[in-house]
Amino acid sequence: MKLVIVGSFAFDTIETPFARRERIVGGSGTYCSLAASFFTTPGIVGVVGSDFPEETVNFFKERGIDTTGLEIKEGKTFFWEARYGNDPNERTTIRTELNVFKDFKPVLPPEYRKAGIVFLGNIDPDQQDGILNQFEAPHLVAMDTINLWIREKPRSLLELLEKVDVFFANDEEIKMLSQETNLVKAGKKLLQRGPSLIVIKKGEHGALLLGKDFTFGVIAHPCDEVVDPTGAGDSFAGGFLGYLDKVKSLTTRDFRRAAVYGSVMASFVIEDFGIERFKTLTTQEIKERFIYFKKLVSF
Amino acid sequence: MKLVIVGSFAFDTIETPFARRERIVGGSGTYCSLAASFFTTPGIVGVVGSDFPEETVNFFKERGIDTTGLEIKEGKTFFWEARYGNDPNERTTIRTELNVFKDFKPVLPPEYRKAGIVFLGNIDPDQQDGILNQFEAPHLVAMDTINLWIREKPRSLLELLEKVDVFFANDEEIKMLSQETNLVKAGKKLLQRGPSLIVIKKGEHGALLLGKDFTFGVIAHPCDEVVDPTGAGDSFAGGFLGYLDKVKSLTTRDFRRAAVYGSVMASFVIEDFGIERFKTLTTQEIKERFIYFKKLVSF
Repeated sequence: MKLVIVGSFAFDTIETPFARRERIVGGSGTYCSLAASFFTTPGIVGVVGSDFPEETVNFFKERGIDTTGLEIKEGKTFFWEARYGNDPNERTTIRTELNVFKDFKPVLPPEYRKAGIVFLGNIDPDQQDGILNQFEAPHLVAMDTINLWIREKPRSLLELLEKVDVFFANDEEIKMLSQETNLVKAGKKLLQRGPSLIVIKKGEHGALLLGKDFTFGVIAHPCDEVVDPTGAGDSFAGGFLGYLDKVKSLTTRDFRRAAVYGSVMASFVIEDFGIERFKTLTTQEIKERFIYFKKLVSF
Repeated sequence: MKLVIVGSFAFDTIETPFARRERIVGGSGTYCSLAASFFTTPGIVGVVGSDFPEETVNFFKERGIDTTGLEIKEGKTFFWEARYGNDPNERTTIRTELNVFKDFKPVLPPEYRKAGIVFLGNIDPDQQDGILNQFEAPHLVAMDTINLWIREKPRSLLELLEKVDVFFANDEEIKMLSQETNLVKAGKKLLQRGPSLIVIKKGEHGALLLGKDFTFGVIAHPCDEVVDPTGAGDSFAGGFLGYLDKVKSLTTRDFRRAAVYGSVMASFVIEDFGIERFKTLTTQEIKERFIYFKKLVSF
């Protein structure tokens, strides 16, 4: 067991300016593990209600995902409803129902404890910390968060950051947490709080990696039809960490390539609603888009 | 005479969240020609009042800029006042005084008419058209504009686009003019209106080049202190066109490298107020930052 992904597994209702989908499968753990599954065989940690489709759990298994850590609990699965504006970076949360996720305090399956790479997807930072403490000695810990926790639990978040190697967040969250208005200054400030790498996700503008001794920028795939932006960030993390788990190496070059694979996976997931695109995606398509990204920035 | 730059030469009052500067020299023609002067010897076309500093005109000449086309007219120089928010892409125009620029109808100096590359900086599209018609047979015509003209003279603008090879605009302007919400779709739509290349300037997020048969993305220099964002777009255009004029070649590879030089010049100008940074900048610094940009996106 190498990569373990902790996150939410959910039903999402999504509205874009062009269409609406009710109660489709989503969640940070879902997107991240599916994206990672194109590179490695991740284990997942999370909880779903008895209403969660067996079909999806079977899809996880078909894709080589270890579902031992996915608890199925009597009750309803976590639910989230959101609406996107014309700018896909503009998202309004309409409704959140925690349901079975409310008292989620997982006990890690014994075979997960030796994980080499741990991803703490966006959930309550105290829950993230409780889970992290159950791992023996991961050589890379990555985490994600959202503005909700920066507002409500900044102290927990900053304490957790000290134990983390890679911090994923979007540009607004980086500025908010560091209380800096300049993005680069903000990222550098957070670098001093523990992580050795800050991954700033900028949606349609790509991502910026700030390390202690390197900076790397990857642009987003110039996409002329974004069907559903949901899960782009989690798929980025999944491609990023899945690739690192595959190559079993953590050099600067690996981080750069990981970021491009992250961007590639994000570029695919937004081509259809929910996780639909991952059902047809092939490793050949991933390879081709990686090469396309190379051409896109070559000079 | 190879590159001719048409634009405004102005006094700007600039307020950022950190400082304020009153009546410093600015204008699209100023920024663009100074940036281009690090690659070639551009000629300028514009008008200033009798209050415009001789010192600045001398600086233009020192930098090898041909000022034959800069008319000095009795009266006051064009004046612009703006305020930036915490996000440097967020700019509010406080005041605009056209002054001598109001009835600007230049007659091109005879030696300018054979220009190979023409840049029509942001001014009234009817004025741009009037000037363009005086050139004999430029092999590359580039233009820039702002939202004001898209709102007030969309028809003139679209007609002018038919005569233009390279269209520079920021992301909002591209969407506004094409009436599309997706940036890539918007750019592709404008590609069908005449230009063979759309250069979408995205401020701190870099630039995207959409050609008929290639796409290229360049990220912005990750700068942890933007002193004054004014002139970044015009300096981008200056570096871009100055480089093309220097290499005297218009292949896809040239356009890619030109965009990086554009980004390099934009990254320098924002390091200080107005044109200050161009007074100390060296070609060695430009070379080094070009190499830095290469490392920044290599994987």
